[in-house]
Amino acid sequence: MDPRIREHAEVLVDWSARVERGDDVVISLGPDAHELGVAVAAALGERGANYVATYASNELHRAWAMAHDGDFEVDPAHHVALYEHADVVLSLGGGRNAMEWSDVPVERRQGLQRATRGIQEARMATDWVSTVHPTRSLAQQAGMSTEAYRAFVYDAVLRDWASLAEEMAELKALLDEGSTVRLRTSGTDLTMSIAGRTAVNSAASVAYDSHNLPSGEVYTAPYDAEGTVTFDVPMTLQGTRVRDVRLTFEAGEVVDYAAGAGEEAIASVLDTDAGARRLGELGVGMNRGITRPTDSILFDEKMAGTVHLALGRAYDACLPAGESGNDSAVHVDLITDTTRDATLEVDGEVVQRDGVFRWEDGFEG
Amino acid sequence: MDPRIREHAEVLVDWSARVERGDDVVISLGPDAHELGVAVAAALGERGANYVATYASNELHRAWAMAHDGDFEVDPAHHVALYEHADVVLSLGGGRNAMEWSDVPVERRQGLQRATRGIQEARMATDWVSTVHPTRSLAQQAGMSTEAYRAFVYDAVLRDWASLAEEMAELKALLDEGSTVRLRTSGTDLTMSIAGRTAVNSAASVAYDSHNLPSGEVYTAPYDAEGTVTFDVPMTLQGTRVRDVRLTFEAGEVVDYAAGAGEEAIASVLDTDAGARRLGELGVGMNRGITRPTDSILFDEKMAGTVHLALGRAYDACLPAGESGNDSAVHVDLITDTTRDATLEVDGEVVQRDGVFRWEDGFEG
Repeated sequence: MDPRIREHAEVLVDWSARVERGDDVVISLGPDAHELGVAVAAALGERGANYVATYASNELHRAWAMAHDGDFEVDPAHHVALYEHADVVLSLGGGRNAMEWSDVPVERRQGLQRATRGIQEARMATDWVSTVHPTRSLAQQAGMSTEAYRAFVYDAVLRDWASLAEEMAELKALLDEGSTVRLRTSGTDLTMSIAGRTAVNSAASVAYDSHNLPSGEVYTAPYDAEGTVTFDVPMTLQGTRVRDVRLTFEAGEVVDYAAGAGEEAIASVLDTDAGARRLGELGVGMNRGITRPTDSILFDEKMAGTVHLALGRAYDACLPAGESGNDSAVHVDLITDTTRDATLEVDGEVVQRDGVFRWEDGFEG
Repeated sequence: MDPRIREHAEVLVDWSARVERGDDVVISLGPDAHELGVAVAAALGERGANYVATYASNELHRAWAMAHDGDFEVDPAHHVALYEHADVVLSLGGGRNAMEWSDVPVERRQGLQRATRGIQEARMATDWVSTVHPTRSLAQQAGMSTEAYRAFVYDAVLRDWASLAEEMAELKALLDEGSTVRLRTSGTDLTMSIAGRTAVNSAASVAYDSHNLPSGEVYTAPYDAEGTVTFDVPMTLQGTRVRDVRLTFEAGEVVDYAAGAGEEAIASVLDTDAGARRLGELGVGMNRGITRPTDSILFDEKMAGTVHLALGRAYDACLPAGESGNDSAVHVDLITDTTRDATLEVDGEVVQRDGVFRWEDGFEG
C-alpha cells in the first residue's frame, strides 16, 4: 500500500477526528475509497475503536431514488439509530462517476433532502469528518492524471496541521478584533463589516469545529458589503462552468452582476431568495499544499493566496449567541486569486499583500 | 446490466425476504457485489422500502482485527442499534479474496465471535437472507470460469420456488410422520431415528424459516445413528481438502472414522466435544439447478441427488418445543451422492431411488 494512504488515515483518525479507545465509529466509504478504508480500519483497530462501514455509492442511491415513487419516508429509524449511537463518522469520498446524479430531477433531490433532515442532524451531532480518497473519477473531474492528482491530494492533506492552526489563530485574532475588511485586487474593491462576528480557525479537526480534511481556512460572516468584487477562479455551479463573476454590492446587497461565463447560473443563485443576494461568508485560504484549483470546493476554497465569499447562508459559529445571521437556502462560494496586485486590509491595516501575510515577511501593515 | 442480476434481486426481495413498503432494510454487500447491490437498491426503491448499505469487506475487517490488541469491546452500540431498528437484512456476499482471513489467528477469530454475539442475535432477529453475487473470487474458489460460474449461480437462484416448496412439502410430511430413515449406497448403510422430530422445508424464504438464497433442501435432526456412511462429495474443511470420509456409528456415536484425504481435519472436528461425535442434521438436497459441487456449502448441500449429514449442533426448529437436541460448538456438513445405486427409505419404504423421488416417476416404495 502507498504509505501516503496510511498517513492520510492517521491524520484523519488522530488529528481530525480525535478518535479514542472505545469510540463507536462509522466509516462511510465510496466504492473506490476501499484502500483508504483498509488503512482507516487498521488505524481504528490499533486505537481500540469499533467500526461499522457503510457503503456510500451514489449509483446505488440513484437506483433507489429513481425507482421510488418519490413519497419518501421521513428519517428511517435504522439510519437515525446508527448515527445516534455513533461517536464519530468518517466519510471517505471516492465514487466512480461524479455525474451519477446528473439525471435525477431536482424535485426528487429536494424531496430526499427534506425526508432525511433527522438523519443529517444525527450525523452532524457526532464528531464527523469528511475527506476524499484520490480516485480516478475525482482526478478526471480535476482535469488531472491519477498520479498527479494523488500527489495533489496528499500535499493538501499531509500538512503540519498544528503549526498551521497556530498561524491561522493569528488571522482569527485580527478578524475577531477588527470591524472592517477591505479587499482590493484587479477588478475588486470591496469593503465589509465584521464587527461583532467571530472567525473560525478551520484547522481540519473537530477540536477546532472543523470537519473537512483537508481544511486550512479562516472564515467569518461579513455584512454591509459595499463595492465590487471579481472572482477569477473558475468553478462548476449547478453543472454549469462559471468564470469571472463580477458582483457589485450596495448596503450589503448585490445590485449588479455579470460573468465571463455561466451568467445564468449566477442569476439563478441570486434569485433563490432575499438572502442569496447577501454575503454569508468571507474566507481566507491558508493551505499552502493546495496550489491550483481542481473544481472541487473542498480543496479550492482552502488554497493559499485566495479569498472566497459566499452568497447566502451564514454559519452560526460566526455569530453572537442567539443572533441569526444571513439566512438563505443556498451557500455558494466564489473564489478570487489574491497573489498578484492584491491587498487584504483589516481596519485599514494591510494583513496580506500579494498572497503573503504580514507575519511572513514582516511588512508594515 | 445482465438481466439475471435484476431477476436475482427481485427473487431476493420478493420471494425470500418478503419486503414491504416502509420496511427498514440493511443491504450488507461485499466489495464485488456492487452490481447486485444496485439492482437490490432499485427493487427496494420500487417497493417503497428504505435502505442503509453496509460494506462487508473481509479485507477492512481483517485489517481492523489484526491491528487491534484483541481485547474487543462487546457488542458496540451503533452496530447493535442498526440491526435492532432494521426489519430486514440482505447479505450480498461477494468478496475479492476468499482466503483473506487465512492468517488471522484462531483465538482472535473466536474472541471476535464471542464479542459480537449480541450483534449476531440482533441480526438474526430480523428477516435476514444471505445470498452471493457470482464474483471472480467465488468462481475461482469453485474452480470455474467467471462466465460458467455466473450461469451456475443463476441456475441455482432463479428457480420456480413456489413449485419447489410444494414438492419439498411432500418430503417434509414423510419425514415428520416417519420414525426411521435408512440410507444405502456404495459404502453406506446407515439407519437413524427421526421420531418426534420436525423437518424444515427450506424454500429460500423467511416465510419458510429459510434464510439462504439459493436454498432447496429438507432437513431434520436425526439421533441414534447405527451403521456406516461414506461421503463422496469433496469439500474444504478448516482449509484442508477432504474427500471420501467414512464414519461408523454405534448407538448414535462415531466409533470409527477414516478418510481418503484430510483425515486429520475430521479427527479435529470429532475431538471438539462430545456432541461433535453425534449427528445434528440429516438434509436432502432438492435444488435441481445445482448440478455440481463448487466447494461452497451454501450450494453443495442443496444439490439435488445428494444427502448430507452434519456432525454437531442440531437446529431448534427440528426439535419439540423446549427440548434441546444434540449440542456442540461445531456443525459440520458432509455430503454424499445418491444418484447411483442409492436408496433413501423412511420406515422401510423407499422415498428416493438413484436420486429420483417416488412422486417423480411413481415407483412403488
